[in-house]
Amino acid sequence: MTSVNLKKEQSRLEEIYQTIFPLLLQTERLLQDVSTRGQGLIPEIVRYVVQAGGKRLRPAMVILSAQIGGAQTDDATVVGASAELIHLATLVHDDIVDKACLRHQKPTAAVEFGDEVAVLLGDYLFAEAMTLLAGLNDPQLLDLFARSTRTTCQGEINQVRRRFQFDISLAEYLSFIDNKTATLMKACMRGGARLARLSSEQSMALGQYGWNIGMAFQIIDDTIDLIGDEDVTGKTLHTDLANGKLTLPLIWLRDSLDSDGRKKFMSRLQSPEISASFMVKWLEESGAIREGLRQAASFANQARIALKGFPDSMPRATLDAVAEYIVTRTR
Amino acid sequence: MTSVNLKKEQSRLEEIYQTIFPLLLQTERLLQDVSTRGQGLIPEIVRYVVQAGGKRLRPAMVILSAQIGGAQTDDATVVGASAELIHLATLVHDDIVDKACLRHQKPTAAVEFGDEVAVLLGDYLFAEAMTLLAGLNDPQLLDLFARSTRTTCQGEINQVRRRFQFDISLAEYLSFIDNKTATLMKACMRGGARLARLSSEQSMALGQYGWNIGMAFQIIDDTIDLIGDEDVTGKTLHTDLANGKLTLPLIWLRDSLDSDGRKKFMSRLQSPEISASFMVKWLEESGAIREGLRQAASFANQARIALKGFPDSMPRATLDAVAEYIVTRTR
Repeated sequence: MTSVNLKKEQSRLEEIYQTIFPLLLQTERLLQDVSTRGQGLIPEIVRYVVQAGGKRLRPAMVILSAQIGGAQTDDATVVGASAELIHLATLVHDDIVDKACLRHQKPTAAVEFGDEVAVLLGDYLFAEAMTLLAGLNDPQLLDLFARSTRTTCQGEINQVRRRFQFDISLAEYLSFIDNKTATLMKACMRGGARLARLSSEQSMALGQYGWNIGMAFQIIDDTIDLIGDEDVTGKTLHTDLANGKLTLPLIWLRDSLDSDGRKKFMSRLQSPEISASFMVKWLEESGAIREGLRQAASFANQARIALKGFPDSMPRATLDAVAEYIVTRTR
Repeated sequence: MTSVNLKKEQSRLEEIYQTIFPLLLQTERLLQDVSTRGQGLIPEIVRYVVQAGGKRLRPAMVILSAQIGGAQTDDATVVGASAELIHLATLVHDDIVDKACLRHQKPTAAVEFGDEVAVLLGDYLFAEAMTLLAGLNDPQLLDLFARSTRTTCQGEINQVRRRFQFDISLAEYLSFIDNKTATLMKACMRGGARLARLSSEQSMALGQYGWNIGMAFQIIDDTIDLIGDEDVTGKTLHTDLANGKLTLPLIWLRDSLDSDGRKKFMSRLQSPEISASFMVKWLEESGAIREGLRQAASFANQARIALKGFPDSMPRATLDAVAEYIVTRTR
């Protein structure tokens, strides 16, 4: 049953990607090249992460953004591969930070090779991303992705430092996910726009699409962490609860409770390992999950609205489909 | 006594740096700017690492290399600050990997803020370095440092993956330190040469200086880890022994032993915590430490020889003094 669901999800994405399939394949080849470079034990451990599978959303966004601007350039696959490497680097490090065991149906790099190697592997992937970008001879592109990586780290650090502090506000949560997810997706869209030499207004509009997709994506990710099916997602769930991170549904539930309810809520958060299933039920029955999905759908809608100024085209239709996919996915 | 030694070391370096003091101060200001940028808890934790003190060898090398080529450019301080940030990022991550507790006489970032924050902090510093470099609008410089960072990670990973494998050869050890230390110092010298628009021959010669300094520096660092004084170095010692890393003196000692001696040696390595003082004594009495110092001195000498083609000048004399300092330092 769950493996049927997983396949259904994959084929949905494949259908959306149909028009850019050759360019995504080219990106994949660049990522494979990264695995084969390097001496000693590097190829083995890089391959483990790079070829684990993943949605390749960021490369797709770079390619589609360049296409919406009329550019059919190989450079989009290079920028896409770099963005994916940055993303993979943060995943490898996040899985150390969150003590997650499973990703893409297999042990995380930290579990497979040890935390020590995983720390250095993330660095390696990030350096590789910057090397690829440097090869394009456009300092603006490098600046864009270096800055967005800095912002990603900032979001992660600030969220980690507020773990187990259950007074976190909705505004703070939104600022964390803005930093750690939406900024890179915005950079992907602006990177594509840069390759197509679009005007700054058009680039800003595409950037808005990317930012809103990022916000929607992370809210759904955080919701899946609460109510998902581990067989479909292929990654460890309930990591946010275990790590004392309040995400949107939890914040919404907390704020909807009276003082007695809130006391019960807080005491459940103190022992996440025994309270997870109770919490999930509470979130579902209180309407908190529904509220999370509603907010994500609202960001996805804003993403689509950001594209209104562009004429109808295949890449625009695909970006619309990505926005739809983002908020209805289950992995 | 030891605090006297520490002061003596610092004033030796200050004397060497005298002629480039204003430029190093400017680099320091750039590093301080990094600490004040960023939201939330970022400034506090960045400041902790950036203002901990350090030899600032890499910025000095960039500045002196640019000067030997006749460039008195502010860009050298930017490249220098970037190189220092890359170096600091790797230190933060190395201290997680090596489980070191002390650096610059205070708790490592991993101990102070936790491993999780330290992982992300290293990433943040690296992204900041790339952002600074991107601001110089020279993709070649970015390529140089992104590649050298990748090589640094490769060296670290390969060394970590060979921990507690005591058959490691001298050639392997030299390849590790080439990757993890010498390559970045070479990049610093070549970065300065690039700013001065030197010929590729001159740039290669300065790169050779940097590479040899890096090799000498790391051999001395590894020797200090064995026989240093924790009050002078201000960092946790015997981390290599504790982490099962064989460095030059240990490899030399192993290879000089007969089969009985080698058995004893191996069994001592299995319980590093109880054998450290015994090992240190053995290394000193066998001549292994002397051999390490001899090899480091030989690399430092090669560094000086690489400068022979440049006319006498203040920066060349300072680079010579740096080569001298590197192999006689005790911290």
